[in-house]
Amino acid sequence: MQNPQIAILTEGCPEPWLAKTAITMLRYRAHDIAAVIDSASAGKTAGEVFGIGGNIPVVASLDDVPEATELSVGIAPAGGRLPEEWRSVLRAALCRGMNIVSGLHDFIGDDAEFQNLAKQHGATIRDVRKNNERRTAEAPEIRRDCLRIHTVANDCAVGKMAVAVELDLALRAAGEDSKFVATGQTGIMVAGDGLPIDCVVSDFVNGAAETLVLENQQHEILVVEGQGSLAHPSFSAVTLGLLHGCAPDGLILCYEAGRKDCKALPHVPLKPLSELRELYETVAALRHPCQSIGIAINGRRLSKSEAEDERKRVSDELGLPACDVYRDGAGVLVQAVFDLRETLNRAAAGSS
Amino acid sequence: MQNPQIAILTEGCPEPWLAKTAITMLRYRAHDIAAVIDSASAGKTAGEVFGIGGNIPVVASLDDVPEATELSVGIAPAGGRLPEEWRSVLRAALCRGMNIVSGLHDFIGDDAEFQNLAKQHGATIRDVRKNNERRTAEAPEIRRDCLRIHTVANDCAVGKMAVAVELDLALRAAGEDSKFVATGQTGIMVAGDGLPIDCVVSDFVNGAAETLVLENQQHEILVVEGQGSLAHPSFSAVTLGLLHGCAPDGLILCYEAGRKDCKALPHVPLKPLSELRELYETVAALRHPCQSIGIAINGRRLSKSEAEDERKRVSDELGLPACDVYRDGAGVLVQAVFDLRETLNRAAAGSS
Repeated sequence: MQNPQIAILTEGCPEPWLAKTAITMLRYRAHDIAAVIDSASAGKTAGEVFGIGGNIPVVASLDDVPEATELSVGIAPAGGRLPEEWRSVLRAALCRGMNIVSGLHDFIGDDAEFQNLAKQHGATIRDVRKNNERRTAEAPEIRRDCLRIHTVANDCAVGKMAVAVELDLALRAAGEDSKFVATGQTGIMVAGDGLPIDCVVSDFVNGAAETLVLENQQHEILVVEGQGSLAHPSFSAVTLGLLHGCAPDGLILCYEAGRKDCKALPHVPLKPLSELRELYETVAALRHPCQSIGIAINGRRLSKSEAEDERKRVSDELGLPACDVYRDGAGVLVQAVFDLRETLNRAAAGSS
Repeated sequence: MQNPQIAILTEGCPEPWLAKTAITMLRYRAHDIAAVIDSASAGKTAGEVFGIGGNIPVVASLDDVPEATELSVGIAPAGGRLPEEWRSVLRAALCRGMNIVSGLHDFIGDDAEFQNLAKQHGATIRDVRKNNERRTAEAPEIRRDCLRIHTVANDCAVGKMAVAVELDLALRAAGEDSKFVATGQTGIMVAGDGLPIDCVVSDFVNGAAETLVLENQQHEILVVEGQGSLAHPSFSAVTLGLLHGCAPDGLILCYEAGRKDCKALPHVPLKPLSELRELYETVAALRHPCQSIGIAINGRRLSKSEAEDERKRVSDELGLPACDVYRDGAGVLVQAVFDLRETLNRAAAGSS
């Protein structure tokens, strides 16, 4: 495609930083994006509203982006339901023949009205969360030379996907045969493949994660996007199914500096990262031996010097290399992956 | 109903003890059951084949139970798929106007042929695993005087449901306002209500378990049926979502004496119960403080004296009361529940 063709819908999102999908699309697919639709911020640029996306305009309505041929749903409201006020936008988009891509739990393509409109106007609807995963995990052996790295966290929405994407980009830049394994709707929109783990029936969550690894084990390194947190009362099932299914060798511990409470649950204080580190390793080892190899800090609330202090503090506290991938790049995590591979290779050589 | 009206289908089940649903129906709803259909064991009694159900006959085909008005699917094959060879039985049942109750993941009622037959012959199809749970868990406060007891285990199919049912029966026999909270298809078939946790979309597993507790918190004691195991590579997601969602005060640790490997995964050795005890308590406490209060032994492979030795051994090892609910009754677990309530009440009085 020559011209940017995607309009991203974030209408009604209470805070810009919660528009995870939009922000990630703006970061990794900026050249495909024509505009963001959000009447509350219309007239500003994406850079001003979301801190990313430069001069891509934020507009009030679909009419302001006549050139767009695809409408992407750019937020993931808790529960994943379709807000009532979006129906008119989706209707208008389909009537214009625009394709729709959505990560909601409410499947746009299952709605009779939208189905009919898409048919009438030759548009397609892609619900990236839709899946029919029905494989029970079997804990098979995975190719030994396929190193699995997994991003885990003390909460939702701290940047597990971004860290995985950045680490994969950096590994590939270093000449490695690495692959980012997407496990959520946004990751899938960025990567073009993957499985929406949180939308798989719970009996098959472990199996779906396992499938992702088995289908990609020809690569030397897989960087598997984490979901939720073992300590998040709403989503821990997804987190554990993914952790056991992908059977990682190494974990990257992600957190947001300064966050005190669980996302969307202000009455639930976050657990200390050191406590969770031990728990993640213990629980992961029920399936496959695993160690934490690095820390990824989301420093969006920190000044440059605060971020540097935080990096030193957390690195000392946990005895692991730490970085903010956006500020510092993912270099120290790349090195941590190399060190882990070296350690495992040495152990394997010693035991054979 | 006056006459037994249910025919239970276990055709093709590789080993009788794997026919969990059938065995549980035979134990708790024997007076409703006309026959078990399993051509490999036809001519024997349920008592001979399953060790329960006394003289209820095992028959070769549906034609041998002309009086039955309901066909219950009595096994839960891994993956929950409908075996191809059952289609003719289901077809015949519907043509006779029999109602079908099934706990398979493959929904009988979604199959066009079965749908049409049911309509033609005035039969109903109830897929107990079917659900539309879409509530995100919110970790609310639960009524303090509603004591939650949860059965957990080191593996699948060790008897978590049976222990929960027996404990609930014993608590009610002791005059307590207790309720068995069913979380699987068999439990639901026995109890008449509950939610099929393993069939809920993973993002909403924790929420579904939480809903079960919120909707039943008017009772003084809830005994929540466990699912899978934190250490089972196939089903740990279900286990954790349930554990966090029901926020138990007390755990009953269940295991089968003599079992060495994970169910259906002979290459995965079981973890020691003592190790899992600590892990369950630690992981549960991420949501709500929790302690193990007793051990339930499945002693089906043990002689009477072996069972007694095992009971003493495991009770000493873990410092907890232990019993086989079928051999010994659930008395020591009832006492353990009373002791826990006493302890929690004293702690609450001390802190107020």
